[in-house]
Amino acid sequence: MLKEAIYHRPKNNFAYAYNKETLHLRLRTKRNDVEKVYLISGDPYSWGQTKEGVACWKPWEKIEMTKKGRTDLFDYWEAAIEPKFRRLKYGFELLCGENKLVYTEKGFWDNAPLDDNSTYFTFPFLNEEDVFQIPAWVKDTVWYQIFPERFANGNRLNDPEGTLTWGSLEPTPTNFFGGDFEGVIQHIDYLVQLGITGIYFTPIFKAYSNHKYDTIDYMEIDPQFGDKETFKRLVQVCHEKGIKVMLDAVFNHSGFYFPQFQDVLENGEKSKYKDWFYIHDFPVQTKPIPNYDTFAFTYAMPKLNTGHPEVRAYLLEVGRYWVREFDIDGWRLDVANEVSHDFWREFRKEVKAVKPDLYILGEIWHDSMPWLQGDQFDAVMNYPYTNAAIQFFAQGKINAEEFVSKTTEALLMYPENVTEVAFNLLGSHDTPRIASVCNENTMKVKQLFTFLLSSSGSPCIYYGDEIGMTGDMDPGCRKCMIWEEDKQDQDLLEFVSKLIKLRKENQAFGNKGTFQILSANNETNHVMYTKTYQGQTIVFVYNNSNTRIRVDIPFNLKGKRVLNLLTGDYFIPEKVELDVVILPFDLVILSFN
Amino acid sequence: MLKEAIYHRPKNNFAYAYNKETLHLRLRTKRNDVEKVYLISGDPYSWGQTKEGVACWKPWEKIEMTKKGRTDLFDYWEAAIEPKFRRLKYGFELLCGENKLVYTEKGFWDNAPLDDNSTYFTFPFLNEEDVFQIPAWVKDTVWYQIFPERFANGNRLNDPEGTLTWGSLEPTPTNFFGGDFEGVIQHIDYLVQLGITGIYFTPIFKAYSNHKYDTIDYMEIDPQFGDKETFKRLVQVCHEKGIKVMLDAVFNHSGFYFPQFQDVLENGEKSKYKDWFYIHDFPVQTKPIPNYDTFAFTYAMPKLNTGHPEVRAYLLEVGRYWVREFDIDGWRLDVANEVSHDFWREFRKEVKAVKPDLYILGEIWHDSMPWLQGDQFDAVMNYPYTNAAIQFFAQGKINAEEFVSKTTEALLMYPENVTEVAFNLLGSHDTPRIASVCNENTMKVKQLFTFLLSSSGSPCIYYGDEIGMTGDMDPGCRKCMIWEEDKQDQDLLEFVSKLIKLRKENQAFGNKGTFQILSANNETNHVMYTKTYQGQTIVFVYNNSNTRIRVDIPFNLKGKRVLNLLTGDYFIPEKVELDVVILPFDLVILSFN
Repeated sequence: MLKEAIYHRPKNNFAYAYNKETLHLRLRTKRNDVEKVYLISGDPYSWGQTKEGVACWKPWEKIEMTKKGRTDLFDYWEAAIEPKFRRLKYGFELLCGENKLVYTEKGFWDNAPLDDNSTYFTFPFLNEEDVFQIPAWVKDTVWYQIFPERFANGNRLNDPEGTLTWGSLEPTPTNFFGGDFEGVIQHIDYLVQLGITGIYFTPIFKAYSNHKYDTIDYMEIDPQFGDKETFKRLVQVCHEKGIKVMLDAVFNHSGFYFPQFQDVLENGEKSKYKDWFYIHDFPVQTKPIPNYDTFAFTYAMPKLNTGHPEVRAYLLEVGRYWVREFDIDGWRLDVANEVSHDFWREFRKEVKAVKPDLYILGEIWHDSMPWLQGDQFDAVMNYPYTNAAIQFFAQGKINAEEFVSKTTEALLMYPENVTEVAFNLLGSHDTPRIASVCNENTMKVKQLFTFLLSSSGSPCIYYGDEIGMTGDMDPGCRKCMIWEEDKQDQDLLEFVSKLIKLRKENQAFGNKGTFQILSANNETNHVMYTKTYQGQTIVFVYNNSNTRIRVDIPFNLKGKRVLNLLTGDYFIPEKVELDVVILPFDLVILSFN
Repeated sequence: MLKEAIYHRPKNNFAYAYNKETLHLRLRTKRNDVEKVYLISGDPYSWGQTKEGVACWKPWEKIEMTKKGRTDLFDYWEAAIEPKFRRLKYGFELLCGENKLVYTEKGFWDNAPLDDNSTYFTFPFLNEEDVFQIPAWVKDTVWYQIFPERFANGNRLNDPEGTLTWGSLEPTPTNFFGGDFEGVIQHIDYLVQLGITGIYFTPIFKAYSNHKYDTIDYMEIDPQFGDKETFKRLVQVCHEKGIKVMLDAVFNHSGFYFPQFQDVLENGEKSKYKDWFYIHDFPVQTKPIPNYDTFAFTYAMPKLNTGHPEVRAYLLEVGRYWVREFDIDGWRLDVANEVSHDFWREFRKEVKAVKPDLYILGEIWHDSMPWLQGDQFDAVMNYPYTNAAIQFFAQGKINAEEFVSKTTEALLMYPENVTEVAFNLLGSHDTPRIASVCNENTMKVKQLFTFLLSSSGSPCIYYGDEIGMTGDMDPGCRKCMIWEEDKQDQDLLEFVSKLIKLRKENQAFGNKGTFQILSANNETNHVMYTKTYQGQTIVFVYNNSNTRIRVDIPFNLKGKRVLNLLTGDYFIPEKVELDVVILPFDLVILSFN
């Protein structure tokens, strides 16, 4: 067994509290190198001891771990355990043929050093305050992302100067089409019909640009969207329809016209706001590159000094204000990875004190484990997860085996309770639209939506993707929503609605279902996985090739009722063997008990 | 190159802010598998771009990494970098012969994917608030741990009932010898002479036992030690002598006679303190095992519910009170790993608000990375570090190569700024005394003290170890301090004083010195390492065998003045080659510029 490949380190995705009673422990080994892994564990203070008359007392115990997944290089093993006294010393026993290897914090052993528990890994105590706890409603939410300027213009009176006719031109970084809150309210039934239960709005506060990521006033609604009364009504309408509302908090940087920054531009070193930003020297200059920290190199987005007590107090009050006064249900945090952990820890405490089941979603594109330990965010925008799917289904950049490897990696890079509320998405206002990425091949788009909506997590649909809207990287992906039904891809819309319905009606389909890859074949380029929960098994088979394929379903379903979830038809196989024929780029979803 | 062995993950000991400008990045590879490693890095927002007229602007850069250390399985590589804009995308280029391999967050590549920086690892922003920052004084402190009941009895009037004559009997879990603050004050010059600059006191608050880990009142001094006035005077005396004072905070559990717990015992479910503890059911029972959470299974140490707002407020006030009112300099946190991270984060904020350069030291015996990220502790009791040294020098359980491997592992398991203030120790009130572990072989004890005092970190001497006191696991290690000079090992005492002096007078000896293993030989069982700083090199050679050995010093020192630091003699080698003869279990320390 390859020692160099074996990895475990406590308190991250390899050892964590799943809930207030349960620990999950994982081990990584070289792929196909180990046949069985056992978890050896016991209480730190009664290790090796027996005590008469105390039923729960075990000197130690040994349980077999499950192979949870595999990547191109590694196998991952997992065990769940409920330590009676909420504390654990543990190690791993690995078996392959006649060989045995024991792995603990202090290294490798031929046999478990049962006489000395100080050599083992430690999960010292399962304190409830440290458990990664997320709002229960998030697991069942299907999000819809709205870029307010482009969803619907419901009130012509609040249109900014120079507003163009809806959809009359391609979007540019600077043009306006007049989308607003009234437009959202008017189309709320469209979202209800689609099955949406949460809306994520990109910024709505007073700002200069059409995207509003350059805030002027965090305490005011941008007048082109409506006023506070309209927004209050919007939240109420959403809540009445069972839809949660999440806003975008742009706390990494302000806009150029943020009065405090203007004050610094005007008064330089004498400005009382000079320490609200990171100004390198005076006078403040925007060229050739800004002499103050910014988002990227954008002079119009000066980075806010969240270490400054006044800035902190101001932004924390912003965080509390919109929850307290408008009853919003979530904050999406823009450029969250560039703001200090220290700030986010306080932010979490403050906003959760106002509304304990608020959802906190960070914008991070890379490995986000440091932000997902229970003290900062509930989730991140989980681009790495769908990235593999896009490369496989949409772009054909990777093959079926690579897709499985990358998907497994993305799933196991976080604890399971993190994955259950991960904000999964096929695209956003920051990426090309999924239909365009798929070269407008709707079959591929459907495969991707199926993958998204059958995955663990809290899926999000970018406005218009469900009707096949196209568009390249922004500003292309920020076109006006198409409301003329004859210009919408009605077939796709119906398909997405059906998926959402299936996710809601079948617990195995969504978060409760255990995900398991059954096969991935580079020749046929097909992938098959199951989701299972309480007796129900749902088999997903995707044909990602341009030829018809026949795939064996590896279950004995003879005489069982097998439901085709997409067509609603059912059949009863007469033989033990069962195979399905799948057309190019098509997919099949079968369900049985 | 073995891909399975290659490891990096940001934001722990593999990627961290060393200070507010500098990042350290590390990579692990299979031992002797890679010849060179380069760090490829650039700004996330100008990756691959050039900009005329901006001097600092680089599309990306490539710097060679240093081989920082090796263990039995792995090599560790490190690079320090100061990203101009305090943010970094990076990957690693590994070379071995003709082979090249590039490693990024998204996996392995034949060539660096320079056109797509989204594949790289990310250190999103170096925010000053998140930098692991510790009190500057700790790096230069030499600690002395005092178990107050056993250091010196300076005032017979506060002796508890049944106090025994000093040192007249072996210590038991329940006997008393009357040690007190007055005793410490009377012997302060002994500590000054030894070179001590910090005292860590095990608990001093009102408690039942002789060790005082079963607190009755966190706001009161135990009367057997003195009163608040005496303690205030003790702190003043220490401060006047340049000695810092650290107290022991036992917040994981209270004592049995803590009035709030007594109230629960008395009033059961009706007690207003019932949620201050974790009571499983009523009535409260202590047998056969307690039906409430405890430290270990000790019924007399009920675990405190630090998630309860009142408990939290109470303990935080304790934390602030002794700093505010008595000007203490540090808190050592008992059983720190079993209390929630959430509590410790708040604790840090609260006590550092009172005294920003307070030292926070957690009692954790295992891998403590989750507590050492800058938001909780400044250090832990670094048992794993000296454990290898004890196994090698004292017990002969491991050989020279294994010692190097384990020491390197213990050094590299944390960021460098963490290691610089690690609380290193050869023993404490919880372990057998070092002289006993060494079977009273003073040569070995000297080797261990030399290793301790020449290491990075903040070393601590357990009272009496410097005079060769013996004792097994507690209560044996808690004997009365020996004050009769003829019963003290004066030679050892002088040796330890000399080491402390050398550490203070030679910056390379202590924290500023870069540690580098030169050789470790299993046949001769010798180890040689250097500490270097600003031109000074100090060579340490240890003979851990029972025969005389001759060891080559791998420097050309011909004509240079070489100082033997222990004897004070110097010599000028006449040849390029230089070797030294070392007697069994002896050591040599040479210094040159």
